Amino acid sequence: MNPINLRYLNKGDMVDGIALVKSAEVRVSSTGSRYLDIMLMDATGEMNGKSWDWGENPAPEVSGVIRMKGMVTEFNGKPQMRVDRLRAAKEEEINWANLVPCAPEDPDEMLRELKRVARSLADVDYAALAEYMLEQYEDKLRIWPAAVSYHHAERAGLAYHTLSMARAGEALLGLYTFLDRSLLLCGVLLHDLCKIEELDASAQGVAAGYSTEGLLLGHIAAGVRRAAEAGMALGLPGEKIMLIQHMILAHHDIPEHGSPRRPMFPEAEMLHHLDVMDARMYDMSHALAGVTPGEFSDRVRSLENRRLYKRLENDDNNSESIE
Amino acid sequence: MNPINLRYLNKGDMVDGIALVKSAEVRVSSTGSRYLDIMLMDATGEMNGKSWDWGENPAPEVSGVIRMKGMVTEFNGKPQMRVDRLRAAKEEEINWANLVPCAPEDPDEMLRELKRVARSLADVDYAALAEYMLEQYEDKLRIWPAAVSYHHAERAGLAYHTLSMARAGEALLGLYTFLDRSLLLCGVLLHDLCKIEELDASAQGVAAGYSTEGLLLGHIAAGVRRAAEAGMALGLPGEKIMLIQHMILAHHDIPEHGSPRRPMFPEAEMLHHLDVMDARMYDMSHALAGVTPGEFSDRVRSLENRRLYKRLENDDNNSESIE
Amino acid sequence: MNPINLRYLNKGDMVDGIALVKSAEVRVSSTGSRYLDIMLMDATGEMNGKSWDWGENPAPEVSGVIRMKGMVTEFNGKPQMRVDRLRAAKEEEINWANLVPCAPEDPDEMLRELKRVARSLADVDYAALAEYMLEQYEDKLRIWPAAVSYHHAERAGLAYHTLSMARAGEALLGLYTFLDRSLLLCGVLLHDLCKIEELDASAQGVAAGYSTEGLLLGHIAAGVRRAAEAGMALGLPGEKIMLIQHMILAHHDIPEHGSPRRPMFPEAEMLHHLDVMDARMYDMSHALAGVTPGEFSDRVRSLENRRLYKRLENDDNNSESIE
Amino acid sequence: MNPINLRYLNKGDMVDGIALVKSAEVRVSSTGSRYLDIMLMDATGEMNGKSWDWGENPAPEVSGVIRMKGMVTEFNGKPQMRVDRLRAAKEEEINWANLVPCAPEDPDEMLRELKRVARSLADVDYAALAEYMLEQYEDKLRIWPAAVSYHHAERAGLAYHTLSMARAGEALLGLYTFLDRSLLLCGVLLHDLCKIEELDASAQGVAAGYSTEGLLLGHIAAGVRRAAEAGMALGLPGEKIMLIQHMILAHHDIPEHGSPRRPMFPEAEMLHHLDVMDARMYDMSHALAGVTPGEFSDRVRSLENRRLYKRLENDDNNSESIE
Amino acid sequence: MNPINLRYLNKGDMVDGIALVKSAEVRVSSTGSRYLDIMLMDATGEMNGKSWDWGENPAPEVSGVIRMKGMVTEFNGKPQMRVDRLRAAKEEEINWANLVPCAPEDPDEMLRELKRVARSLADVDYAALAEYMLEQYEDKLRIWPAAVSYHHAERAGLAYHTLSMARAGEALLGLYTFLDRSLLLCGVLLHDLCKIEELDASAQGVAAGYSTEGLLLGHIAAGVRRAAEAGMALGLPGEKIMLIQHMILAHHDIPEHGSPRRPMFPEAEMLHHLDVMDARMYDMSHALAGVTPGEFSDRVRSLENRRLYKRLENDDNNSESIE
Amino acid sequence: MNPINLRYLNKGDMVDGIALVKSAEVRVSSTGSRYLDIMLMDATGEMNGKSWDWGENPAPEVSGVIRMKGMVTEFNGKPQMRVDRLRAAKEEEINWANLVPCAPEDPDEMLRELKRVARSLADVDYAALAEYMLEQYEDKLRIWPAAVSYHHAERAGLAYHTLSMARAGEALLGLYTFLDRSLLLCGVLLHDLCKIEELDASAQGVAAGYSTEGLLLGHIAAGVRRAAEAGMALGLPGEKIMLIQHMILAHHDIPEHGSPRRPMFPEAEMLHHLDVMDARMYDMSHALAGVTPGEFSDRVRSLENRRLYKRLENDDNNSESIE
Repeated sequence: MNPINLRYLNKGDMVDGIALVKSAEVRVSSTGSRYLDIMLMDATGEMNGKSWDWGENPAPEVSGVIRMKGMVTEFNGKPQMRVDRLRAAKEEEINWANLVPCAPEDPDEMLRELKRVARSLADVDYAALAEYMLEQYEDKLRIWPAAVSYHHAERAGLAYHTLSMARAGEALLGLYTFLDRSLLLCGVLLHDLCKIEELDASAQGVAAGYSTEGLLLGHIAAGVRRAAEAGMALGLPGEKIMLIQHMILAHHDIPEHGSPRRPMFPEAEMLHHLDVMDARMYDMSHALAGVTPGEFSDRVRSLENRRLYKRLENDDNNSESIE
Repeated sequence: MNPINLRYLNKGDMVDGIALVKSAEVRVSSTGSRYLDIMLMDATGEMNGKSWDWGENPAPEVSGVIRMKGMVTEFNGKPQMRVDRLRAAKEEEINWANLVPCAPEDPDEMLRELKRVARSLADVDYAALAEYMLEQYEDKLRIWPAAVSYHHAERAGLAYHTLSMARAGEALLGLYTFLDRSLLLCGVLLHDLCKIEELDASAQGVAAGYSTEGLLLGHIAAGVRRAAEAGMALGLPGEKIMLIQHMILAHHDIPEHGSPRRPMFPEAEMLHHLDVMDARMYDMSHALAGVTPGEFSDRVRSLENRRLYKRLENDDNNSESIE
Repeated sequence: MNPINLRYLNKGDMVDGIALVKSAEVRVSSTGSRYLDIMLMDATGEMNGKSWDWGENPAPEVSGVIRMKGMVTEFNGKPQMRVDRLRAAKEEEINWANLVPCAPEDPDEMLRELKRVARSLADVDYAALAEYMLEQYEDKLRIWPAAVSYHHAERAGLAYHTLSMARAGEALLGLYTFLDRSLLLCGVLLHDLCKIEELDASAQGVAAGYSTEGLLLGHIAAGVRRAAEAGMALGLPGEKIMLIQHMILAHHDIPEHGSPRRPMFPEAEMLHHLDVMDARMYDMSHALAGVTPGEFSDRVRSLENRRLYKRLENDDNNSESIE
Repeated sequence: MNPINLRYLNKGDMVDGIALVKSAEVRVSSTGSRYLDIMLMDATGEMNGKSWDWGENPAPEVSGVIRMKGMVTEFNGKPQMRVDRLRAAKEEEINWANLVPCAPEDPDEMLRELKRVARSLADVDYAALAEYMLEQYEDKLRIWPAAVSYHHAERAGLAYHTLSMARAGEALLGLYTFLDRSLLLCGVLLHDLCKIEELDASAQGVAAGYSTEGLLLGHIAAGVRRAAEAGMALGLPGEKIMLIQHMILAHHDIPEHGSPRRPMFPEAEMLHHLDVMDARMYDMSHALAGVTPGEFSDRVRSLENRRLYKRLENDDNNSESIE
Repeated sequence: MNPINLRYLNKGDMVDGIALVKSAEVRVSSTGSRYLDIMLMDATGEMNGKSWDWGENPAPEVSGVIRMKGMVTEFNGKPQMRVDRLRAAKEEEINWANLVPCAPEDPDEMLRELKRVARSLADVDYAALAEYMLEQYEDKLRIWPAAVSYHHAERAGLAYHTLSMARAGEALLGLYTFLDRSLLLCGVLLHDLCKIEELDASAQGVAAGYSTEGLLLGHIAAGVRRAAEAGMALGLPGEKIMLIQHMILAHHDIPEHGSPRRPMFPEAEMLHHLDVMDARMYDMSHALAGVTPGEFSDRVRSLENRRLYKRLENDDNNSESIE
Repeated sequence: MNPINLRYLNKGDMVDGIALVKSAEVRVSSTGSRYLDIMLMDATGEMNGKSWDWGENPAPEVSGVIRMKGMVTEFNGKPQMRVDRLRAAKEEEINWANLVPCAPEDPDEMLRELKRVARSLADVDYAALAEYMLEQYEDKLRIWPAAVSYHHAERAGLAYHTLSMARAGEALLGLYTFLDRSLLLCGVLLHDLCKIEELDASAQGVAAGYSTEGLLLGHIAAGVRRAAEAGMALGLPGEKIMLIQHMILAHHDIPEHGSPRRPMFPEAEMLHHLDVMDARMYDMSHALAGVTPGEFSDRVRSLENRRLYKRLENDDNNSESIE
């Protein structure tokens, strides 16, 4: 079944396709009639919809997939879907890649590469720790997003963010040769793993919000504790457990961002830079995706409300830039 | 043997007594002669000393106790001890209470009271957790200071600070009756215990500085982890482990002070207030100890460089103030 | 007459009862008809209402009490009252305790206790000052709220906040025995009294906003001045007037919160802690009032936008927690 | 008697002249001999001095004037006075203008001008208030400095600062014609008057430090209170008393600088600008006084540690710059 | 043609007049009919309007002038224009002074005075630089606003702001005589000139927003560069170019406001004060324009969300205040 | 001639070798004799020295090279050189690499590589700009340090920092393929070039401090201007000049660090990360250079006063870490 591609619809478009139900509620209009208020979602974006004569039907299930027909109208200057018909989608109509935003690489392949990195660590202790932790979180890592919104808030976004950092770290190890590869890459692999405990996500990799423990403790405190438990279970030397704990604790760099300690050795410092650099590159490229060259984006909340500039395309002489 | 009472000496005083060696080094003067540079310490304070013709003798052992004779001179406007004779003190000459600052209550009695509080918790889970943790740290809690400098930097200062907070918490539970006594007092008992891991202290309860793990992780991250390990070992419900972890994590209130999460339920909030209130009362009463009524103290670093005012004594009508 | 209990109404409920008019305005709809837009209020909360065919009637008086019949509908996902009939309430239908949020203790009894505290001060000067000031503000103290919104924004909230602090102070004086009871409790009694000048409140104890002087000067500057005037009128020693002025001036602790001086003696410091602790306990218990155990509240503005967690109920073993 | 002009002395200079004693203490050298440590001061600056064989003589009186002979030596790279002879100066040897830094205009003349400004206010209420307050503080205003250090820390510096602001205000009233001249200039005359209560100064106009009340309350809280008392004594309308109180309260602009309220009407805002502009012009011209054109000053603490640049002299074409 | 005077219209007023089109869009209502959503503007303010049966007509041109008839209605408690008829205005119907907010002095006269100031500088280099720059920007300076919103966001507002500062500077040069008049006034004339590059404005002097270069570089960086280019083109001494560059660079005083360097000589410091003082006086007098005496304005964003107080009128005795 | 290797000398060492004169002054002791106070420097560090009987000799020339004999003594616990003999060094005795700290690669080779990078840019405009700017600063780039202290404060440190960033940028371009290589690397090459104008350095590449223009304008404002001048001289399109100016302007990321604009496109953002990452890696590896494994460094000012931890050496299994 073709996806609706909500982001690219215009007023007046007739629609027949599938979408994910982000939220749905039956309401009563000022004239007393019951209507459905539904938030539709697919991999391209979201759109509010109304089905005006809903009667006594129950609202569709949240996180379910529906097939619908309707037309795009406009309300308060924004597009709105007038839903004319709606039913649960059949199994064979569903293609998840069209319904939720996904990381740009295959989850299974990413997991294999992350494990290859873990096995490649020359220090057997860090290798063992990284492999152990990846195994524990493996299943969820295949689908988990890295955030509720902003950077890497997409299916398998956590694995993709971790892998990008590992690749960038590998590239920079050739320049900053005093860094311990095993320590740095072990830190990269573990630093955000406990976002799996911090975030609640659906089976489709859409973050629904924060877990209770996520709000009360956060992924950094959880990560410090889980790394210590794993390290002791594996019999790692105390020094190495401590170094990894510190890297997790310090990877947000400053207290205001959630790190009670600032990085106190070079690998911890580099981990922080790999993290923020990858997040910023992701946010910037996404924020500029729909912007016309020569214009500015709207203010981007995850980039401290900066507006971003989309540079004009270079001429033919700029062949090395494969965008 | 009488203590020297370093704080109360004046220029010209002749001295014969015992003192603790905080640091000691043999140096060479510009004229080539060797002299001893020594930092003397007792329960009242510290004073630099010099022994001018030290020759080839080794420096006295740091943290050892010496008996010395000498005279108080002055250098750069500050008192300085001219050490004329010096030897290791004999066992029978040493009274530790005169040599290191001590909490104002007996350590054994404080430990008994802390355990009584733990046993008194109506919730058996929190009671078990508190008893378990007190037992684990019991020996060190008898001597450990609560800080390197500033509030409760004294032998058994950590136990005293914890006990004062428990008493204040008990007093306020009568007013704020919606608070869960078991949760609040369990949080009080555990919140700073990992200062025992964070600080290095001598057998006499003098903090020598921070441990490696203390600098890299801090007592909050360590406390969160230890509480979780203990909770799991005792089979506590996950909710209760999580609440205690949050209380430890949040007890410094704001990120800039080391808490990645702010208090998110009333017992966590109250724990923070008990902590800072007790610390401030301690610092203020100590900073004002030697100040003349009607005058101001010097700037106090632990109180954000405030100068404190020592109020004039009230007249006879103020009999309720037993200072 | 039964109150409406606005907070607990659901869509579809039929209503017949009394409410306070917080605001009311006659407006013209896009179709040209005149309707009444009214904000209803009782002790449980507020709700917007509409009376659609209002015609040429004037709007009901603000701060008046009405009796109304109608039905709860919904607009933009929030409940809204469709007002079908409405008239001024009769004297015998009105029970103020149902109409405005009130402090949980009887105002007259609170006033008596506040005066008992004042008389109990051993220092005759502070006792005289406290009694004098309480007498001056006595009438308004019986009804005045402590804030426009947030902590103790309720009828007699100022007296209740002051009394809670006095009780907490009394409880802690037993622990921090170097504090001067007369000075501390005199400071407690006086510290917020000039909120009576700062806030405009109705005869029912509902804060309408800030007075002109309240906005231009604030209750701290007014309090400093009033305390000095009273002290001079009573012939108090200059030192004591100055100490009380400082306590009022410094009780918000830091400049950013309105205190140009930070507390410079222990009683002033303790006053600050009593104040913020009582405010936080109030705000937290109110913010959690309607939250399901195991869930989080919405963000609370007065608590720096924290979300609060409502802990799960303990089991039978937790009998000391009488909520 | 010629002044010493301490600022302009060089190593090796022989000195015979008068100086003010800022501080003086008899100390004992490491060899046991008694020497005088003295801080000399005159209008040009300060210099430390030593008189090496002081014997059993008492130290000279602080704030007294001495006549001395000696030679300039050097210690730690700074000039130091070797005092060879020293006695109390005779009355006829003393010229105060050479001994303490003084404002550049005659105090009596400044007072006359300040009073002329007060009398010139068209609003009789503000005129009465300004005259009343000037009379109350008149004697001390003739000598009081405006600060312990930094801007206008000089004899009659407070009067000079106030007068400069009044002149600048008058000049700008011609441009910003919506400002009320009476209100603005009354605010100027009163805004810093209570520095006379805040600072302790010698009879010579040298600030010795802060008074107890100055430290506990500050000149802003004192000023608010004194203005209100005066206003009530004179029977001023409440509105006018309130406006003047607000101007005093808000003239430091932001809480971090001591103003609990920010300026809320144009005259209060302008008062703030006149104040900071005059202070900055003073500090900058003084900091650049001894700097070589084309070079930078040292860091200036009162200017947030900025270094200042002394511009090169313009050529003959710049005749309007009368420096 | 009479202007509409949008700010002063009330519900029910019948309107026939001209207005500027700030924005206009044809939308589709929920019932499918097409209507015009238009933002009307004239010198007094703005108002949203609707023309309900717009049909297939195109929207009027943005920045064009229209003549319209209609009636003032109300929506959500705010006035709204129901547009009944609408056409492009004829040339003879347009009076720009009624359509856009204008500075209160004649642009040509202001330009003449600015040039007179430039020619009056005694230093021939600064005079040449100021004249050269004014000539370059002369045409746009006649119309350019100084901001998109807030201070001096009006036709020729940039020239008016610059001229007001020059006049204030001249007035203060008589008091702070160590300032170099040529340097200070040259800095005043040049400091904001590159707002002409930073802001996009219509031919009518209405700022449409920021230019691409304005967003990427800002008027300070542009100003520093343009001043240097002009200085080199004119052969000015390097020292003088550098001083002017610094003044432009530092005139916002602190990094958070856009100045990478703080003022480092007195003329640069004074320039900053003239700038902020003039902006504040403008914003305050405008914010108070419609406020009833004795009341407060709403919160003003450009004044850090302060509310401003409109003082009560003084009595007859206050004749010098010509408002 | 052997260097002295000042950093590695211990008390009592006899010295015969060459050193650079960082500063030198003849002073007079308290006994009246003249001595030389000299600050010695070589590539390993600095040491203060004294030559006690200097007599009437002039001080050695600053920045000159001397040959000296002497012995290491101690003063205030720090090593001090007692200089017994001293003369200007002969040409053949001097090896600059031993006298000043140098970047770890050959300056000529670094310059060749920087130019290769410039030539490799596919966009001919950016290539031309980068080549032009490198040529202009080529001679100084061979020797210039990147700072007065902290990161890359060494001979040719600016070239080394720039080259390291270019290499890191190249490595990351493979991962973040949407970045424009020409734009990013042109920004890298130009971003700090005007440190050559900001810093005064000796012919040996030792930074003596800031130039006048450096203090008044800074390297960012200078760089923006120089890039624009070069771009216009080369006839580059305005868009490209603007992008490069923005990258220079924004490369310190936040106003508090000197950037009035935050990065507004991905290449500008990446430039910032390359810059700070390279600086941090440099500072951290240098700060840890002399620290014993398992211990902490002193507080490092350039790293916000962090103390750094030197991790224990890994065992034989960690062969990939070539330190």
